[in-house]
Amino acid sequence: MVKVGIVGGTGYTGVELLRLLANHSQAKVEVITSRSEEGVRVDDMYPNLRGHYDLRFTVPDVSTLSQCDVVFFATPHGVAMKMAPELVANGVKVIDLGADFRIKDLELWSQWYGMEHTSPEAAAMAVYGLPEVNREAIKSAQLIACPGCYPTAAQLGFLPLIENNLIDHRRLIADCKSGVSGAGRGANVGALLCETSESMKAYGVSGHRHLPEIKQGLSEAAGRPVGLTFVPHLTPMIRGIHATLYATLKDPVDGLQELFEARYANEPFVDVMPAGSHPETRSVKGANICRISVFRPQNDDTVVVLSAIDNLVKGAAGQAIQNMNIMCGIAENEGLRAVGMMP
Amino acid sequence: MVKVGIVGGTGYTGVELLRLLANHSQAKVEVITSRSEEGVRVDDMYPNLRGHYDLRFTVPDVSTLSQCDVVFFATPHGVAMKMAPELVANGVKVIDLGADFRIKDLELWSQWYGMEHTSPEAAAMAVYGLPEVNREAIKSAQLIACPGCYPTAAQLGFLPLIENNLIDHRRLIADCKSGVSGAGRGANVGALLCETSESMKAYGVSGHRHLPEIKQGLSEAAGRPVGLTFVPHLTPMIRGIHATLYATLKDPVDGLQELFEARYANEPFVDVMPAGSHPETRSVKGANICRISVFRPQNDDTVVVLSAIDNLVKGAAGQAIQNMNIMCGIAENEGLRAVGMMP
Amino acid sequence: MVKVGIVGGTGYTGVELLRLLANHSQAKVEVITSRSEEGVRVDDMYPNLRGHYDLRFTVPDVSTLSQCDVVFFATPHGVAMKMAPELVANGVKVIDLGADFRIKDLELWSQWYGMEHTSPEAAAMAVYGLPEVNREAIKSAQLIACPGCYPTAAQLGFLPLIENNLIDHRRLIADCKSGVSGAGRGANVGALLCETSESMKAYGVSGHRHLPEIKQGLSEAAGRPVGLTFVPHLTPMIRGIHATLYATLKDPVDGLQELFEARYANEPFVDVMPAGSHPETRSVKGANICRISVFRPQNDDTVVVLSAIDNLVKGAAGQAIQNMNIMCGIAENEGLRAVGMMP
Amino acid sequence: MVKVGIVGGTGYTGVELLRLLANHSQAKVEVITSRSEEGVRVDDMYPNLRGHYDLRFTVPDVSTLSQCDVVFFATPHGVAMKMAPELVANGVKVIDLGADFRIKDLELWSQWYGMEHTSPEAAAMAVYGLPEVNREAIKSAQLIACPGCYPTAAQLGFLPLIENNLIDHRRLIADCKSGVSGAGRGANVGALLCETSESMKAYGVSGHRHLPEIKQGLSEAAGRPVGLTFVPHLTPMIRGIHATLYATLKDPVDGLQELFEARYANEPFVDVMPAGSHPETRSVKGANICRISVFRPQNDDTVVVLSAIDNLVKGAAGQAIQNMNIMCGIAENEGLRAVGMMP
Repeated sequence: MVKVGIVGGTGYTGVELLRLLANHSQAKVEVITSRSEEGVRVDDMYPNLRGHYDLRFTVPDVSTLSQCDVVFFATPHGVAMKMAPELVANGVKVIDLGADFRIKDLELWSQWYGMEHTSPEAAAMAVYGLPEVNREAIKSAQLIACPGCYPTAAQLGFLPLIENNLIDHRRLIADCKSGVSGAGRGANVGALLCETSESMKAYGVSGHRHLPEIKQGLSEAAGRPVGLTFVPHLTPMIRGIHATLYATLKDPVDGLQELFEARYANEPFVDVMPAGSHPETRSVKGANICRISVFRPQNDDTVVVLSAIDNLVKGAAGQAIQNMNIMCGIAENEGLRAVGMMP
Repeated sequence: MVKVGIVGGTGYTGVELLRLLANHSQAKVEVITSRSEEGVRVDDMYPNLRGHYDLRFTVPDVSTLSQCDVVFFATPHGVAMKMAPELVANGVKVIDLGADFRIKDLELWSQWYGMEHTSPEAAAMAVYGLPEVNREAIKSAQLIACPGCYPTAAQLGFLPLIENNLIDHRRLIADCKSGVSGAGRGANVGALLCETSESMKAYGVSGHRHLPEIKQGLSEAAGRPVGLTFVPHLTPMIRGIHATLYATLKDPVDGLQELFEARYANEPFVDVMPAGSHPETRSVKGANICRISVFRPQNDDTVVVLSAIDNLVKGAAGQAIQNMNIMCGIAENEGLRAVGMMP
Repeated sequence: MVKVGIVGGTGYTGVELLRLLANHSQAKVEVITSRSEEGVRVDDMYPNLRGHYDLRFTVPDVSTLSQCDVVFFATPHGVAMKMAPELVANGVKVIDLGADFRIKDLELWSQWYGMEHTSPEAAAMAVYGLPEVNREAIKSAQLIACPGCYPTAAQLGFLPLIENNLIDHRRLIADCKSGVSGAGRGANVGALLCETSESMKAYGVSGHRHLPEIKQGLSEAAGRPVGLTFVPHLTPMIRGIHATLYATLKDPVDGLQELFEARYANEPFVDVMPAGSHPETRSVKGANICRISVFRPQNDDTVVVLSAIDNLVKGAAGQAIQNMNIMCGIAENEGLRAVGMMP
Repeated sequence: MVKVGIVGGTGYTGVELLRLLANHSQAKVEVITSRSEEGVRVDDMYPNLRGHYDLRFTVPDVSTLSQCDVVFFATPHGVAMKMAPELVANGVKVIDLGADFRIKDLELWSQWYGMEHTSPEAAAMAVYGLPEVNREAIKSAQLIACPGCYPTAAQLGFLPLIENNLIDHRRLIADCKSGVSGAGRGANVGALLCETSESMKAYGVSGHRHLPEIKQGLSEAAGRPVGLTFVPHLTPMIRGIHATLYATLKDPVDGLQELFEARYANEPFVDVMPAGSHPETRSVKGANICRISVFRPQNDDTVVVLSAIDNLVKGAAGQAIQNMNIMCGIAENEGLRAVGMMP
């Protein structure tokens, strides 16, 4: 039984880890931390957990956490990089759901995240936890940087095209729509029901922190720097990311459907939809799955890829557990077999 | 492994049975029927099931269904009563999620459901599948009438008060709020997003089919006919029922909290909340649980009970599986351990 | 042209006043205050107002506000009672949308609002601004206490029954459902979309500040103290209050429909619906109207009244403008003729 | 006073015409037709209209309609083209909110709409009712083809760039998101709350009827055929369209903000937002306005335009009334001064 610790358990990715791990047969949450909620029962804060956990929030502490086999960081950026190095040194496997180790170029990281990076060594050893690209490296990793939600949806959609050098890599467009849970559980006016319901808007068009992360992943796959326009949108739903991806085909090709199916044939958590169908985010609600469709509208040279995930599952907590399973030699889908909730 | 058949699998209770049974370790869906969708793959209709089922809808047929151990009817009223008797005669355990066998007084049934009842014998042998009342009878039942969604929430909330003869049984009030999935998946204007979102309304105030069902259950518990005013409301959400129940205490009593806790101490799927807390329907979303709180506002003689369920789970498919587990000697919570999805 | 000032213009009742007054032919907003947003353009904060206002928030100041004919307070309790007396002394008509002057018994007020009342003289002279009860007094009032949202819906529903002494006044039940905008625009976790969407809950069952206000109004109408159980609920929509009211008829009476129609025959903003129909909150969305239906389910002795308003309009800003119109001798429906937005 | 007739008044554009015209000082609805609802009061069908109309649906009839000055068609395609020619011949001004006269190339029209066009003469004389392009022609028109909702948002966003020949006209991308009211009030499963709420999806990626309409308008502005990829999405809200438009700048230019502001400086219903801000659809909810922002993310050569409208107002009924006002010499904003409803 894998002993699990969670740092920063009060946010939406924290409670989602708890929800999913409650039915994981080979892992057990032993420690969950929150400075602000010290002493509070997790099921007082999240009544959906009543009957599943007998656990209280504690103050984060490296020596206690070091008794865990795996520690998840469900924290804002800047937290994991302070504690991860020591935990790793103590033999703990660390999986960061935050942004501290996602960007390899630490100068670029500082530019987008507005602080110095204090753990360059840890950053250097961290493996980017997208199993569909890095499964082998994840197996032996000590420190995982879990991909962001938008980057997961966008990369999985673009990868088959990029890896096969089929599209103009200089002008990629990712028009992405997210549910409001992506904004977290903080008390901010912009995420109130009365500010977000019955409305739709783009935000961060000038620049969003997931832009350099997506570019890094796609550039690596392309073998050269890609150009990307990334426009995130806020959508009136709790969960879900829908990425609509646009690129120009270098040559008019057939067989895109087959190409996508072949690329993901052995991937347990990527589902290429039948030709002509459109993935709905509700079909992945609560499930660790990315559903993808590919189109060439009007047989034109623009290819359109649709990619849908639950931002809290394949875009965060589910993918983190998938990484844990791979790292610990557990069946990759353990704890992740739930069916999407529809309706 | 219990062989399962589902009649009428295209509605919301049908797909919910499939969602829950996908992870049931001791049951397997072998047959699913739909006249209108014959030949269609279930995962073409419900993409959330992709990867979990390799099954097509077939035309309902008694001889095929008779090879199942358990058959669920997720059909409108009038269907199960035609097929159930023969299936039961063939040794199949039948669980009706519809209304055919809920009301014992068949004249009353006809009055509310607008048709003659064609299976009085089956109706007589049917057990009302509320495990918190009828667990022993369910164990040996051949035919189960699964309670309606409102009746489940309302009865579980009133029972401790009624059974202990604490309230004026002549003037009970059940003010109930339901998500729109209670209206089913039929193409009706009244359930469009544009007709139900950003709005709230009561409906059926003059009379709703769940009224006689709730009265029957409470009258049985009271040992005499109860009087009940039942007002259902439509709420802009997909899932969830919240029942707010009002009654007048015969005597000013303390200890209602303890009374409720004691009544449900051994019930795996009823959760009495800590004193002073209010159940949210989202805390039971997707989970087979009823959460209950009890209040005496202003220490007055009016008692208020709050009762929350997911209408598709504890109010339908989950409770049906709970019944199956009890009938088949399987652990009562098998397939029903999922945590409510929050947020 | 009536010169209008608004104190506390950044909340939802503030912006709703601005929305409605933008098309009022005989009133013009000259001053709008907010300490926190001083200098900010109102249409930068509320882009829906772009093109309708050329106005900036200023710091509240009695001498500036005294140049207005009417000043609205759209502030939390405790603010208006500090400034209103001086404004009234300066000849300004004051309309408080907050709670400072709603409760006549100031000891009771202090108990529920947790502070001393600092303006007993003002409180004594304030007129409770429910035009359907106090129109004559409003005409000559200098200071109006605008009713709360729940109290507006509940009182208008109960009044015909109470005034005619038809019901047992000791056991009234008001089961009320509100949209989330009732919680205001403050940054609190409980009003986030991810906490309120796809869910329903009761709150404040032990006691809510609108309880004494409703009791005061109904007791006055009854000529003796009434008993009331009031349970508010949070509903996943932005706007709307739906009150479902229950009472026991003293005698089985017919003619409730006619009674309600007669009571409100000359009221421009109360609409008694045809017998058998149920008001939807969306039918009053954005409009200054209360729609009411009355039922006697199963011809029993329990009467059920349904009452629907937009909490921000007839429950706040619209009713405030209605009061202003009456006070200033303007046509009562000026600025209030908009049709509810449906869908 | 302009006498107005409405053909097909039971859908969402029909009731929206009624809502807006209720407060139009110079127009009065005299006739409203619906075959299916003959004899029904409009306020029985749409209770928000209670108190505003004393009108019943009648069967459509050319001679009755010919007594109107203006007739709106709020009908599915194929209806207006049958009746419009005779009405026009009788001197009636006809405004079609449907698709019959939008596409000038009738062969193309037949291809996309699946029927023969029966009124080529009427189609030839029809003016495309986008006032920001065709105001002069509208003034003297007898027959108006009101633009579709997506085409309104997309064209207004692209026009300043196209008219000034700043972008590569061969590869335009319009990623558009619509509320569910765009699907109309028909009883179809795909528009149920339980199918559309808490979800997001693209649809019609292979081809949507608004594609040729947008291309026609932009090609005319460009003076040559443009290439366009158009992907519509369904968003869980009632009203609103958000178009996110992408194009490649021919040369790196500054001054796009000024260009947009200048283009729409005299347009009463197009609002160019301050640089750096993002339009929300809720800021235009219920209002006849298009809000636009323009960006050059990362100073790259991709330009991004955000364009938001209420699909039922500037995308349908409001724009139709704007056309009527222009045709009849009424102030263009009469009946269209309402402020967007926010929250």
